[in-house]
Amino acid sequence: MIGRLNHVAIAVKDIAAAARVYRETFGADVTAAQAQPDHGVTTVFINLPNTKIELLEPLGADSPIQGFLDKNPSGGIHHVCYEVDDILAARDRLVAAGARVLGSGEPRIGAHGKPVLFLHPKDFCGTLVELEQA
Amino acid sequence: MIGRLNHVAIAVKDIAAAARVYRETFGADVTAAQAQPDHGVTTVFINLPNTKIELLEPLGADSPIQGFLDKNPSGGIHHVCYEVDDILAARDRLVAAGARVLGSGEPRIGAHGKPVLFLHPKDFCGTLVELEQA
Repeated sequence: MIGRLNHVAIAVKDIAAAARVYRETFGADVTAAQAQPDHGVTTVFINLPNTKIELLEPLGADSPIQGFLDKNPSGGIHHVCYEVDDILAARDRLVAAGARVLGSGEPRIGAHGKPVLFLHPKDFCGTLVELEQA
Repeated sequence: MIGRLNHVAIAVKDIAAAARVYRETFGADVTAAQAQPDHGVTTVFINLPNTKIELLEPLGADSPIQGFLDKNPSGGIHHVCYEVDDILAARDRLVAAGARVLGSGEPRIGAHGKPVLFLHPKDFCGTLVELEQA
């Protein structure tokens, strides 16, 4: 069911500093920062040859990653995102297997303009998993 | 400098249960568990089309991931591994940039039989980074 690893998301306090680490220290291909007020984050993508790293900085008072940064003030790996061919079929299969989908259980449009869902970390090895329609 | 994302490592308490989640719930291609006493872990690989997820369970009394699991009893994302063409050149460049390499600073042979180094999380957005010779 799951396909490609679409991205690994890393939450950071200072996205400009984090982008500099990846651009200058790691010599990677790093995009410009983009505010995504609908998602409560500012994003930077690091384009690796086979996948992406997504840097996330909280944006606004209700950012969904602020709690994570409060617990991990140096930043840390926040989630992994797997692609699926059919997000509704994937959701139904996961729910039938007893897994919990976060929020309303209905896909919403994610930071890449595609339908996404988040799965409960306790059901997936302590890891927050995002599913994205491929 | 950094190339492909070689793998994302997820530390788990029960690797058989975690492998079942990825094989049965996620329908992924999951390898058999392999004890790696030299590294203090048992590993399972999840082969995605573009990269791998590495599940790690502590093995033995001095497992390097036991402390992480004590802090994260449900498991969690432990590190990311980037490939580099020349690990010694990469190490020298990182050290010159002020980054800290863990341990002796000399590459050792990792779980895939290739030279690896680990970098200090504080210098890399709170993220433990492994570099592996491609």
